[in-house]
Amino acid sequence: MTDAGRQAILRAAWRAFARQPYAAVTLRGIAADAGVSASLIVKHFGGKDQLFDVVADFSDAGELLVAAPNESLGRHAVLTLIRWRRQNDSDLLVRVVFAAGDGDERARMRDQFREQVVRAFADRLDGDDSELRAELIVAHLLGLGAMLALQKTGPAATADPELVADLYGPALQHLIDQNGHQSH
Amino acid sequence: MTDAGRQAILRAAWRAFARQPYAAVTLRGIAADAGVSASLIVKHFGGKDQLFDVVADFSDAGELLVAAPNESLGRHAVLTLIRWRRQNDSDLLVRVVFAAGDGDERARMRDQFREQVVRAFADRLDGDDSELRAELIVAHLLGLGAMLALQKTGPAATADPELVADLYGPALQHLIDQNGHQSH
Repeated sequence: MTDAGRQAILRAAWRAFARQPYAAVTLRGIAADAGVSASLIVKHFGGKDQLFDVVADFSDAGELLVAAPNESLGRHAVLTLIRWRRQNDSDLLVRVVFAAGDGDERARMRDQFREQVVRAFADRLDGDDSELRAELIVAHLLGLGAMLALQKTGPAATADPELVADLYGPALQHLIDQNGHQSH
Repeated sequence: MTDAGRQAILRAAWRAFARQPYAAVTLRGIAADAGVSASLIVKHFGGKDQLFDVVADFSDAGELLVAAPNESLGRHAVLTLIRWRRQNDSDLLVRVVFAAGDGDERARMRDQFREQVVRAFADRLDGDDSELRAELIVAHLLGLGAMLALQKTGPAATADPELVADLYGPALQHLIDQNGHQSH
């Protein structure tokens, strides 16, 4: 299967899981939305549970976003998010917003997001309030991802990524560097 | 109707519009989700179009968020968002994320968001890239709103709002103040 085909199936799956209770989602419905057969999905992903696991997995996103030394981590994370969107027309993180609300599967997706993304940043932080600061770093990234998804022809989506990183990266870096309360 | 009843109807409406194409949404379905009668919705809001107009209106949010002088606007916007969530168990902005995707009504909601929220900040900014900076300011707020909605018992949702404003507000203020490229 092509990367584009795989992405189309995952996007259709994400839409289905976002819009319906888990029990109401069917492979047939996802297949119809993606323009493929249900048997193709089974062949490449397995069943509905396995497809959900892929949609709810943020381990790759977490690894990509923290793949830089602390002194340049804020800028790196912002540039990674922007470049991923431009290359894939999708966002590394923002699908988690659709996991707000009731349901065991949504709670599982939120928990995985916390463990795989927020934790990846928290593990890099010294000083006070590292859990809180990590959550706020990821909040900055979620917001940028959401804005790029919403305003696809807006100034942030079309500006030079380096300019956006100049303007947006310091917010993250400030939270990464902040260890003034701790004695080293 | 009580404020709580009104909020329940608006939340049910938002869920319906987020999950279905506009044409598929029915007042009957929204009423069932909200636990009220369709006639009560008609009495207080009018029809489906009017209900959508309320959900897609961000003018109050825009006004609340910019109700401070520029030198304290970043902190004000962050505190306003946090306090609104704690008082209303809802978010001023984050429902716009569900307007990503296809459909005339979703596009209209995104456009209103741009005009009523991003524009409210852009009108306050001097210097270069004011449209871009305004979009990034609102991105910061969207991300915080999304994180608070997702991690309702997490550190950001439970911390002292003043501490969150200490950590998160400077990101917005930096974008508000940034006019180094312009000669004054």
